[in-house]
Amino acid sequence: MAKVRVHGFSLSLDGYAAGAGQDREHPLGRGGSKLHEWVFETRYGRRLRGLQGGTTSVDDVLVSARDEGIGATIMGRNMFGPVRGPWKTGEPWTGWWGSDPPYHHRVFVLTHHPRPPIEMEGGTTFSFVPTGILDALEQALAAAEGQDVLIGGGAATVRQYLAAGLVDEAHLVIVPVLLGSGERLFVSPQINDATYRCIEHVSTASVTHLRLERC
Amino acid sequence: MAKVRVHGFSLSLDGYAAGAGQDREHPLGRGGSKLHEWVFETRYGRRLRGLQGGTTSVDDVLVSARDEGIGATIMGRNMFGPVRGPWKTGEPWTGWWGSDPPYHHRVFVLTHHPRPPIEMEGGTTFSFVPTGILDALEQALAAAEGQDVLIGGGAATVRQYLAAGLVDEAHLVIVPVLLGSGERLFVSPQINDATYRCIEHVSTASVTHLRLERC
Repeated sequence: MAKVRVHGFSLSLDGYAAGAGQDREHPLGRGGSKLHEWVFETRYGRRLRGLQGGTTSVDDVLVSARDEGIGATIMGRNMFGPVRGPWKTGEPWTGWWGSDPPYHHRVFVLTHHPRPPIEMEGGTTFSFVPTGILDALEQALAAAEGQDVLIGGGAATVRQYLAAGLVDEAHLVIVPVLLGSGERLFVSPQINDATYRCIEHVSTASVTHLRLERC
Repeated sequence: MAKVRVHGFSLSLDGYAAGAGQDREHPLGRGGSKLHEWVFETRYGRRLRGLQGGTTSVDDVLVSARDEGIGATIMGRNMFGPVRGPWKTGEPWTGWWGSDPPYHHRVFVLTHHPRPPIEMEGGTTFSFVPTGILDALEQALAAAEGQDVLIGGGAATVRQYLAAGLVDEAHLVIVPVLLGSGERLFVSPQINDATYRCIEHVSTASVTHLRLERC
């Protein structure tokens, strides 16, 4: 049975998934890049940047599982880019990831504004879904052809899928920094012990990994 | 040098220090008692309840350090009791802890409403401070006679002392449950990486312990 998964989703100690003031120069907001430094210490993270080396312990094992068995990804428009409002004709923005994004499968971008799909190098195609989270999930499950669907982010997108009870399992990562402000994952009273339970938690030298499972 | 400390302060995975709907029957709010179950599995926690046994590993070592070197405690009125508004003459409420509270030193209760001190059995005296957090801290430091002062709680009291930069070190405990709603510790943008840093984090089978230090 294909699962809907959240994987390696980082939160600060005070609960923020991104810093305040996100824009083109600061895609993760003020201080937000601190939430991802732990990834780039791992072998998986260094490979994403085309580098050798990196740690191969628990952090690496858990973060690299993000790619295992994923057939399609869903993300919010904010994660796709800083452009707001209707897309311009011939809009040049094709994501933060350059010509060969690290997905290599179909990526469904939630947006209020339709746009034709963009085929990138390496097998990634961005499709734009103005018809809501359920329709995006249906399209993603079909595109994944029996593999799992990753809810990539950002916080608002993950929160909506959690609140709707559509996420089967979520791997969250608490990074021991205080951002002070930003975008929270947990703002919805719909996500609680009656809907999700934490089935595992483990600290490494860098972070604390948590695994949530739908009740 | 006497320190101002927060110790064994529990937060849910989604950031709540107490559940919603706190009242006389539910002093910790809906689901809030789940935040403290880990304490009552330890030898320290069982002794608080007059019981034998309990675990003696990391959780016990860290939580029992709460009592070490503490000469006075500060708490908010909400932590002292559910009574609101001015105190009645001959007010019978003397705290949640029975005739011999587990403090055995002077306890300063922040309140807008003056009330004469209450001497309890076992060396605990509750003093009521209507003159603000700074004055309460000054009184507590004097009463502690060179020992440390514990900021006992609840969330609003700990938050105020953290935001004012008056806490020297804080031991927080993330309990892997989702309360969904309640009282947050981290709501103030004054508490961030510029004021506090996390110097240690460790998971046990029950919880994740974090230690914050003032920058």
